[in-house]
Amino acid sequence: MITVSIIGSGNVAQHLILAFKKAEGVSLVQVLARAPQAVAPLLEPAQIITEYHDLVQVDLILIAVTDTAIADVSAQIPFENQLVAHTSGSVSMADLDSKNHRGVFYPLQTFTKGKEIDFTSIPLCLEAEQKEDYSVLTAVAKAITTVTYPVNSEQRKALHVAAVFVCNFVNHLYQIGSDLCEEHHLDFDLLKPLIQETAAKVMTLSPREAQTGPARRQDSTTINAHLNYLNDTHQKELYTLLTKSIIDNGKKL
Amino acid sequence: MITVSIIGSGNVAQHLILAFKKAEGVSLVQVLARAPQAVAPLLEPAQIITEYHDLVQVDLILIAVTDTAIADVSAQIPFENQLVAHTSGSVSMADLDSKNHRGVFYPLQTFTKGKEIDFTSIPLCLEAEQKEDYSVLTAVAKAITTVTYPVNSEQRKALHVAAVFVCNFVNHLYQIGSDLCEEHHLDFDLLKPLIQETAAKVMTLSPREAQTGPARRQDSTTINAHLNYLNDTHQKELYTLLTKSIIDNGKKL
Repeated sequence: MITVSIIGSGNVAQHLILAFKKAEGVSLVQVLARAPQAVAPLLEPAQIITEYHDLVQVDLILIAVTDTAIADVSAQIPFENQLVAHTSGSVSMADLDSKNHRGVFYPLQTFTKGKEIDFTSIPLCLEAEQKEDYSVLTAVAKAITTVTYPVNSEQRKALHVAAVFVCNFVNHLYQIGSDLCEEHHLDFDLLKPLIQETAAKVMTLSPREAQTGPARRQDSTTINAHLNYLNDTHQKELYTLLTKSIIDNGKKL
Repeated sequence: MITVSIIGSGNVAQHLILAFKKAEGVSLVQVLARAPQAVAPLLEPAQIITEYHDLVQVDLILIAVTDTAIADVSAQIPFENQLVAHTSGSVSMADLDSKNHRGVFYPLQTFTKGKEIDFTSIPLCLEAEQKEDYSVLTAVAKAITTVTYPVNSEQRKALHVAAVFVCNFVNHLYQIGSDLCEEHHLDFDLLKPLIQETAAKVMTLSPREAQTGPARRQDSTTINAHLNYLNDTHQKELYTLLTKSIIDNGKKL
């Protein structure tokens, strides 16, 4: 049985706790929580601690706290040569205190408070300094997901930027769609099948093959009609820039 | 039994033919095709015609051709007072020849050649000049989908722009994610669960509630790190503008 503890009580920590509770072959020993009430409904009272000196050594300590606190938290762990991994997409492995064995255990997904998620299909991006540590990370990861990838810190940076484009920025375009509907007394539900199909298409086609629309066709009549139609400055600027980017991208073929 | 004919042989026409073939209560009488070979596998030979003078009168003629040809096609229909509707998101109902009864029958979805789609959940946006014509459109629509909406020409313009944002532009952001993966020898599959969950979230939450990420948190450390990281001009410009739009949008709350 592999033993794991978690430092953190936020969104990612909570989703990891839920995943480990269902996992076989991994035992969740302790959760060090600054906000113990946030994880209390998920754990036995004895599993929750609030002080670093109460931590016991385990096979893996996962740090699931806000990016800017990771280095400081790792320095406070009262052990040496303990395997410690953080769960962040944008923090380097080297930011962890070097007194311990270092690793990264980054689940590439958007976690929403209160919305449970099927962890078994979430890619876990793994990195470690030493081969035997990588094996521990892999064993823990495979207990909660079917999808693991070796991703080094440099690649993880690219992946985190890519995630911002396909998640945060995509959601903002949904927001613009929703605003346009609201403005014209249309139900946002009208757009939902299109949103789902657009995502479904790139599960089997490449985004390049899946691209449609006036920009892809270089249909300047429709593009100009849309630009004349839009009043909001940001919407107009985004329409212009995204259209230009699609057209230039098509030329690269 | 309501009788329908289609003018057109492209993507939308083909998906409509497939939907009508499965429908009860509607009979597809003729398809007038400039490219008869494109629809030949879907129809009996007797259903396919290539000349306007071979058209027979039916309850509804649907024009599913490219936007710029709609007005001309409608003028060539050799009848008067025949109900004629086009299927375009961006053409006004008034562009149809006024010798016939006019309507719009706009399926709000992205159609991909060779990828069959469940038509029963596609919203059909309907418009007609006369009440009895609207009833015919509704009856035909309800034979192939569970989702119909009254949408006038002004609203349809807004909806078409919104569709460009949530479909074409979203797909382009998927493309950027894919490019970043490729550049760093990462599998695009890594991003797919995130893409699916991002779309799934707005089925139950509003995009405003679902928004996460560095821009939403106004996390300038991460934003600047990402901007420093990006080399491509379009990617940098889009990152900047989308971030600004998310931040300003947050201020509107």
